[in-house]
Amino acid sequence: MEGHAPRSAALVNSISQLKSDVRSGDRAALARAITLIESRRPDHQAQARDLVQELLPLTGKAIRVGITGSPGVGKSTTIDALGMALIGKGHKVAVLAVDPSSARTGGSILGDKTRMARLSAEADAFIRPSPSSGTLGGVAAKTREAMLLCEAAGFDVVLVETVGIGQSETAVCDMTDFFLALMLPGAGDELQGIKKGLVELADMIAVNKADGDNLKRAKAAAAEYNAALHILAPRSEHWFPPVLTYSALTGDGIDAVWEKVVAHRTAMIASGEFAKRRRQQQVKWMWTILEDRLHARLRSDPAIRARVKQTETAVANGEMTPTIAAETVAALLEQR
Amino acid sequence: MEGHAPRSAALVNSISQLKSDVRSGDRAALARAITLIESRRPDHQAQARDLVQELLPLTGKAIRVGITGSPGVGKSTTIDALGMALIGKGHKVAVLAVDPSSARTGGSILGDKTRMARLSAEADAFIRPSPSSGTLGGVAAKTREAMLLCEAAGFDVVLVETVGIGQSETAVCDMTDFFLALMLPGAGDELQGIKKGLVELADMIAVNKADGDNLKRAKAAAAEYNAALHILAPRSEHWFPPVLTYSALTGDGIDAVWEKVVAHRTAMIASGEFAKRRRQQQVKWMWTILEDRLHARLRSDPAIRARVKQTETAVANGEMTPTIAAETVAALLEQR
Repeated sequence: MEGHAPRSAALVNSISQLKSDVRSGDRAALARAITLIESRRPDHQAQARDLVQELLPLTGKAIRVGITGSPGVGKSTTIDALGMALIGKGHKVAVLAVDPSSARTGGSILGDKTRMARLSAEADAFIRPSPSSGTLGGVAAKTREAMLLCEAAGFDVVLVETVGIGQSETAVCDMTDFFLALMLPGAGDELQGIKKGLVELADMIAVNKADGDNLKRAKAAAAEYNAALHILAPRSEHWFPPVLTYSALTGDGIDAVWEKVVAHRTAMIASGEFAKRRRQQQVKWMWTILEDRLHARLRSDPAIRARVKQTETAVANGEMTPTIAAETVAALLEQR
Repeated sequence: MEGHAPRSAALVNSISQLKSDVRSGDRAALARAITLIESRRPDHQAQARDLVQELLPLTGKAIRVGITGSPGVGKSTTIDALGMALIGKGHKVAVLAVDPSSARTGGSILGDKTRMARLSAEADAFIRPSPSSGTLGGVAAKTREAMLLCEAAGFDVVLVETVGIGQSETAVCDMTDFFLALMLPGAGDELQGIKKGLVELADMIAVNKADGDNLKRAKAAAAEYNAALHILAPRSEHWFPPVLTYSALTGDGIDAVWEKVVAHRTAMIASGEFAKRRRQQQVKWMWTILEDRLHARLRSDPAIRARVKQTETAVANGEMTPTIAAETVAALLEQR
């Protein structure tokens, strides 16, 4: 709805006002600025670029936490509980999401704010659903810029939720400082498998629903995950991913989850890894955007798109070597 | 040495002869053809492209196995033992390598053929060191084309060795059907950590040195790795990565290792995953080459290279948004 011409036109006329409103922490202005980022109109995109560039000096100060977990693990209730605990400590909390499937599935995972009932009523919280259109690269890029705007607006914790799909998880891991994987205690003896890709990304595993009848099972699951993680070589010599249990329902263990996030940050800053990782993320992001642009160019012209498809098929069928195919596609890129 | 003008010129004049010599399984011709692939001379590169394209219908039939392991794990002795066992079964075995560090460390890991003493003396074996120059992308591309030539020359098993470095392992996994990770029993109680990235790639873990005094420790290590793998969700629903022990020294368990490779192939072919994975590998390879070309173009002109570096630094320092930086670099690409 917000993309309609009249409102968009209003955004266009008040860009410098928008900038100062975002800086002052105005949540409505922040929401409009993110809408500007998500707009596909070329004039909006140019303005969004300038807006983000101008606000850049105000960004980078937040604790950026990525949160993943399969459907049913309780991501929304966990974020609700964690967000409320953080507001209680004086933080301002922004919640964003990367869910490239949200367009297909008819609405973002965060579209229903009732799923974060308490947090969505708080003045110190800002909840924004996933951009709902485009490729994963496009969705991730918009979420990343939205994160920068949230930081410029004074939010000092940004939680980025994602669905449990490999590439979305990598994208969120690439834009955050800490990546938290939520798991469930097994149903009966059946332990939920950790996805292999996730093991490489996770800075912590937290087992939800450690309450009532589930408590014992949750503790047992955590012990098994912990044993498995100990057979793996840690990614950083300054951090070994802990395995915790907690309950989003009762709030038990939520504070301990956050303490680990803070401990990780302290260790990373002390070792210099924090600054290094942020720098690498920025540069990687630049190259990702460039690559997306090139792919978009190859898709934009129907004749070129058809030639690329044809070339891909010949390669897949073993009729053309990838080297020759790459040259064919490179020639198509240069032709424009 | 082989890149010197006189020998190169000889290659150039006999390209159709070279093609038929490779087809007939002439190992000297195969070695010359791979030298042509590795040459940086533009005329050689054009000829190599044509050679590979023409031989393409003869490729794709081999069992392609990637083998990784940390230094000291006994990769060379394992390949020597496995290769000899395969030749005993009537196979023709080619051994290639991807080691982008080989230029720096002064010689490929396979440079010293004495490390595969028995295999290198066999008429049905062909051992080629890693291409020793260029980026990982370049090294991997040359190894991949060398693999195709080996197949055209009638080698029906190709073993691709790599060093235990994350990106090299991904590159080798992307060009093979089965990825084998070699491990050692721990020294004392200390279990060797499995690198996280490797867990995602490995189709099997094999613990070497299961002989003499080490036998018990090797079995214990295998049991622990197996327990850890069981907590992870399998990549394919048709294959659960087994954990075996073997001894490259005595040959015990080598046959069982190969039986698993064959069982995996049977399961993948039956489920259709085999053909699907090969197709995806080809297409991914095409895009990787294209990307490498674009990066190479940005590096080739010193003025452009300096501008790219400048832009990267501004992004890393948080002075420029990645979006604007990507546009800056895209403009540099288009300018040529």
